[in-house]
Amino acid sequence: MLPGIGLFGTGDIVRALVPYLRVKGFRVEAVWGRTLEAAENVATELNIPFHTNKIDDVLLRKDVDLVFIICQPDLHAQIAVKALGIGKHVLCDRPAGLCQLEVLKMVHAAQYYPSLISVISHGLRFLPAFVHMKSHIAAGYVGTVNVCDIRVQCGSMIGTQFDWMCSHLMGGGILTMLGSHIIDVVSWVTGQRATRVHGIMRTFTKSTEKINGIRWIDSDDFNSFQMILDRGACVTATLNSHIPGEFIQELVVCGSQGRLVVRGSKLYGQKNDVNSKEELLLAGDEDIAQVSGSNSNNGARINSLLPAPYLQGLFRMVLALKEAFMGDGEHGWLKEPVSSAATFEDGQYVQAVIDAIRLSSSSRQWEQVTVATDESELNPLMTRLNLPNINMSSLDALSQAPTNQRKVASSHWPFPNNH
Amino acid sequence: MLPGIGLFGTGDIVRALVPYLRVKGFRVEAVWGRTLEAAENVATELNIPFHTNKIDDVLLRKDVDLVFIICQPDLHAQIAVKALGIGKHVLCDRPAGLCQLEVLKMVHAAQYYPSLISVISHGLRFLPAFVHMKSHIAAGYVGTVNVCDIRVQCGSMIGTQFDWMCSHLMGGGILTMLGSHIIDVVSWVTGQRATRVHGIMRTFTKSTEKINGIRWIDSDDFNSFQMILDRGACVTATLNSHIPGEFIQELVVCGSQGRLVVRGSKLYGQKNDVNSKEELLLAGDEDIAQVSGSNSNNGARINSLLPAPYLQGLFRMVLALKEAFMGDGEHGWLKEPVSSAATFEDGQYVQAVIDAIRLSSSSRQWEQVTVATDESELNPLMTRLNLPNINMSSLDALSQAPTNQRKVASSHWPFPNNH
Repeated sequence: MLPGIGLFGTGDIVRALVPYLRVKGFRVEAVWGRTLEAAENVATELNIPFHTNKIDDVLLRKDVDLVFIICQPDLHAQIAVKALGIGKHVLCDRPAGLCQLEVLKMVHAAQYYPSLISVISHGLRFLPAFVHMKSHIAAGYVGTVNVCDIRVQCGSMIGTQFDWMCSHLMGGGILTMLGSHIIDVVSWVTGQRATRVHGIMRTFTKSTEKINGIRWIDSDDFNSFQMILDRGACVTATLNSHIPGEFIQELVVCGSQGRLVVRGSKLYGQKNDVNSKEELLLAGDEDIAQVSGSNSNNGARINSLLPAPYLQGLFRMVLALKEAFMGDGEHGWLKEPVSSAATFEDGQYVQAVIDAIRLSSSSRQWEQVTVATDESELNPLMTRLNLPNINMSSLDALSQAPTNQRKVASSHWPFPNNH
Repeated sequence: MLPGIGLFGTGDIVRALVPYLRVKGFRVEAVWGRTLEAAENVATELNIPFHTNKIDDVLLRKDVDLVFIICQPDLHAQIAVKALGIGKHVLCDRPAGLCQLEVLKMVHAAQYYPSLISVISHGLRFLPAFVHMKSHIAAGYVGTVNVCDIRVQCGSMIGTQFDWMCSHLMGGGILTMLGSHIIDVVSWVTGQRATRVHGIMRTFTKSTEKINGIRWIDSDDFNSFQMILDRGACVTATLNSHIPGEFIQELVVCGSQGRLVVRGSKLYGQKNDVNSKEELLLAGDEDIAQVSGSNSNNGARINSLLPAPYLQGLFRMVLALKEAFMGDGEHGWLKEPVSSAATFEDGQYVQAVIDAIRLSSSSRQWEQVTVATDESELNPLMTRLNLPNINMSSLDALSQAPTNQRKVASSHWPFPNNH
């Protein structure tokens, strides 16, 4: 039987997701909102039987077996760790947390409860174009992977009110929102991880017509980053939210024998022969696209926050989750259909890259990507990043987190190079 | 009367250019080639009356008043300085020289003979799309310029034989060949210059079917660079010669009010209003394109070395040169029609940026762009770049160059920061 779902979050993604979950047979039992009013509005609009602004009230419900954490990133770690601790499956939105330390706590929780599903919503892994790109690369279509070139162009991701999306300290910005997906999918399709990175982050739009009070926007609206992967490939990505209009995403993988390109939801390829021409290898994801199309009347901001390829990928991921639960007889093969999903470990890697790109943008140097195994390794990085007290205080709220591991290891500086 | 032209070079660009020069009324009097055989072949093919492999034999001819230096970059400075010294106008191909020190010598020569035309072949400045982009930016179409995003995708620039294009020490590579144009046109349309830069250069294809002997290709075939301009705009450029097929070039300028995009030879624009859509502001350069089309049977390599927008721009530049010489009555207004052309000073700036990007790629740091005024400032930079002795020896051949300025100023290390 499909599990009951508890939702954390009241944003546009929730509005797009709930109808699809119901079509696929899931029951949405409860919704949590930051304020009772927000929760009530969504519950009324989407006809969800229970709403609250208390986290535990959703987690402790017996009819909730699977939680979708689609709220502000500073709460992700707290909710995910708690949920796993009381035996709930977790799908957590990107970015997994505010910094690697938070995500490492989630990883430890997931390792402690291996029979529970714990995945990050990197839906591009389920988009057929990327699935086929991965298998083509594995089959040698491009030969040795040399270059990945990614370009994302979209309109502003800032809404009409000041919220966490406006604050990089709360996890907002184009790097965490879209860059996280890119970092994950590049690593997934190539089978390579970044060893060092370089980046520029900028906030060009610091205020808007609606947001011009005492609080300013400081989340990045432009990002250019470069990664050197562990087998030598170069990755360069440009994320630009100053291009209103159609959402454009192109990911090119060039190798010694040819190239593969995903444009939107379509896959193209060309071999390096003289007579070869670019060919369409896989057309878009139309049946899924129709469902997302039916939700496009939920406001223009959906397009920026979760454009078509992302929504299609997320919907495909929901299908995989359904398959996983339909086969829920023995624990052995429960997770099979979601085996390609991003684990919390993958989320930690992505977060480590994001942290290093942020650090690079302020240090103006290349930075090593350090995936930590022990929480004590990470404090120096946080110090260098000047991450705010808010992180630590929100972590303090994690009553289940083992506090004895949280020793400040300033003597570890400079932190050891994992690569 | 139009001046007689002496050509330095025997490459594909020469083959594309000569017919167009003749159509416009120029006389091509002499051609120089690195070997007598190469010169003879081109002279026969293009029906040029005189050919030689001795530089002076072209420069000293009385029927040559204008020289086109379109040969290997390590000879540019030598030929340009000599030509100006004996009263000839100069159009020099990009890159202006091998390093900033060489180009500074050219600048000093140009300053010494101000009545002579001395320009770099940055033809994009004459392409209508960029002319209109510049005037739209000046008129406030995009508001404050925040981001320039450039992407160039083309096939391999390496021919069937080992030549200077295969060697970064001889001036080959995608950064000098195409990046130089991009650096120049970004600065020209925005009116801003780079203060610091960062770059990755890679050579993924080190040998080909034809080039696999004792000499390997070491010129860059992939380049990603970032620039911070002097009024704060971010520039990110990706130059990738691993994309066989159609030449793709896109230059996006995003500002606070809207954006402008040149794709190929077309200009598009969109204001940041909610209801605004991207509009075609200027269609391509068709009449010129037809001429370039008539030369497309000269081999596939033309497309990589001088793709349509570049050839169109170069032809427009030839038209401007013609206008300049048609009005050659008084020195006062001789240069008017080429006043928007890139001067040798502009070429020095571009070379300074290229040098800094190269340095950044090996130092893995951001590097200041230092435009020197005195030759003694530049030796430390060359030392850090490990530029080869070939530079200095080819400069030694410059009999006219003032040798007393060439003091080694190792005490200047670290060199002063001009910004």
